Amino acid sequence: MTRTILQSATKTATIGFDEPFCVIGERINPTGRKKLAAELEAGDFSTVERDAVLQVACGAMVLDVNAGVVYNSNPDPNVTEPPLMRQMIELVQGLVDVPLCIDSSVPAALEAGLGAAQGRPLVNSVTGEEDRLEMVLPLVKKYDVPVVAISNDDTGISEDPDIRFDVARKIVRRAADFGIPAHDIVVDPLVMPVGAMATAGRQVFALVRRLREELGVNTTCGASNISFGLPHRHGINAAFLPMAIGAGMTSAIMNPIRLVEMESIRAANMLMDHDPNGGEWIRFARVIEAVEQGASFAEASKSALAQAGAGRRGGRRSRASKG
Amino acid sequence: MTRTILQSATKTATIGFDEPFCVIGERINPTGRKKLAAELEAGDFSTVERDAVLQVACGAMVLDVNAGVVYNSNPDPNVTEPPLMRQMIELVQGLVDVPLCIDSSVPAALEAGLGAAQGRPLVNSVTGEEDRLEMVLPLVKKYDVPVVAISNDDTGISEDPDIRFDVARKIVRRAADFGIPAHDIVVDPLVMPVGAMATAGRQVFALVRRLREELGVNTTCGASNISFGLPHRHGINAAFLPMAIGAGMTSAIMNPIRLVEMESIRAANMLMDHDPNGGEWIRFARVIEAVEQGASFAEASKSALAQAGAGRRGGRRSRASKG
Repeated sequence: MTRTILQSATKTATIGFDEPFCVIGERINPTGRKKLAAELEAGDFSTVERDAVLQVACGAMVLDVNAGVVYNSNPDPNVTEPPLMRQMIELVQGLVDVPLCIDSSVPAALEAGLGAAQGRPLVNSVTGEEDRLEMVLPLVKKYDVPVVAISNDDTGISEDPDIRFDVARKIVRRAADFGIPAHDIVVDPLVMPVGAMATAGRQVFALVRRLREELGVNTTCGASNISFGLPHRHGINAAFLPMAIGAGMTSAIMNPIRLVEMESIRAANMLMDHDPNGGEWIRFARVIEAVEQGASFAEASKSALAQAGAGRRGGRRSRASKG
Repeated sequence: MTRTILQSATKTATIGFDEPFCVIGERINPTGRKKLAAELEAGDFSTVERDAVLQVACGAMVLDVNAGVVYNSNPDPNVTEPPLMRQMIELVQGLVDVPLCIDSSVPAALEAGLGAAQGRPLVNSVTGEEDRLEMVLPLVKKYDVPVVAISNDDTGISEDPDIRFDVARKIVRRAADFGIPAHDIVVDPLVMPVGAMATAGRQVFALVRRLREELGVNTTCGASNISFGLPHRHGINAAFLPMAIGAGMTSAIMNPIRLVEMESIRAANMLMDHDPNGGEWIRFARVIEAVEQGASFAEASKSALAQAGAGRRGGRRSRASKG
């Protein structure tokens, strides 16, 4: 049973076939967030701080950190991103105790993040492109960390799922040449918008199953892509996540502060027999009740966690701290 | 691709591998509804009338009709159920135009229902019990109708999914001896409460896949059983249904007047590529919006259907009327 182990200084998060679904919080990312990008250029990290605390409160088990801001004062990310990545990693791991996911297309920023991160972070990402393989895999090996492998290559993103599978297999094989085991590769099979490509859902479900059965790898995705362009996106996301989990997907990079998606994941965990005695579901049902009575999702989650912690003192540790 | 064809006097509903999920409304059933049972004994059919119209408005494509009331004045269902079934079938098909599902454990009530129903109703149900096979299958053959096959037998309901599969296979084979084809058998693999049996969800998903791949049959279930005894049941149901659909389940007997479950099914239809161009999802998103603004689900559905009908006049017919 494949397990990918991520660690902070004090906590372990496991992505695995027999584990609850791993929620990787996506919000610390200035891409497409102009206000956040401007704040970062001005040295204002208040949104990053808020997003770190909020995402963990709502149930994120890992936080993605992306420093891909294009400064108005200096448009070269090779210069600006590495120091910003280091600074953001240090800031975030000072605030929350979950493992991190270092997200950049700039190898020097990945290395800066790897130098700054405590424990065993996830690297996001390598692709099947030759230059990416040659730049990222040595870093992954050097730091002995797991990596997200995105299934596109020098020819781009194929609409043919068989080709995307082949790209994933190529990355797994190339990684093996570097001494990186398959259980340290988390494949992103690429989720297309179902509004633009009607087979997008079926493709992902079939791909996840193959990646799991034939390559033995964990999987992840940018979950909200599936609903891009559609009305009432959360309804599509909240059906997609359980279906992906049922097909064998083991993690997603997503926005954890939305109750409906997190609820669908908690329910799917229980239905996959990844929630012993339904303890997590029963706790989460109290959160839902509190939200229905007017509390914010983050507040309700924090108070449920505090209650559970009090009840468990000296007993079973919380899921996020299981080894 | 397996297709089970149900018909009323004017409408066809198809349960099939390549069809949108078939929602069979469960509410016209006095079992466990004391007030409804008392009404029926008193000759008051107002709740039946209301439930028929309401369920179809909310999106039920087939209505289950169960006349299993135990009269205080006469406790013998062999006497009381057949005439009541006939009366209820006639009443319901006078009010709504969807195909019906005749639900009884009393063979004479099934036959009374079959005599009264127009078109091609679904019979609910036969089991693997010898006496049921010998009583129900001849009726199914005589009326040339499809039948729900529940996977328990004379030894009861097995907790072992392999045994439940074997029971389903036995029913399919026995039906073949009667000249009833597999595509007219809709297997209910039996859904256990996941709160009592942690593997209940995984069992059903695996069973549905086997039933589909090895026996080529459509499947159904009493969907809400999965969440029995748990808090916030709708959250479990709304994850279970997409996961079951992803595994290949093609229908469920369920309460269609709950928005959250129906939303999860509409989203799953789109994700399975069973909603061409997302037309049904986009229409349903308007229903959700109207409900968020205070309308009841039934009202919002009716007005969305009316709008869609006006827009489509002379064009494509609504899904429920597709042949």
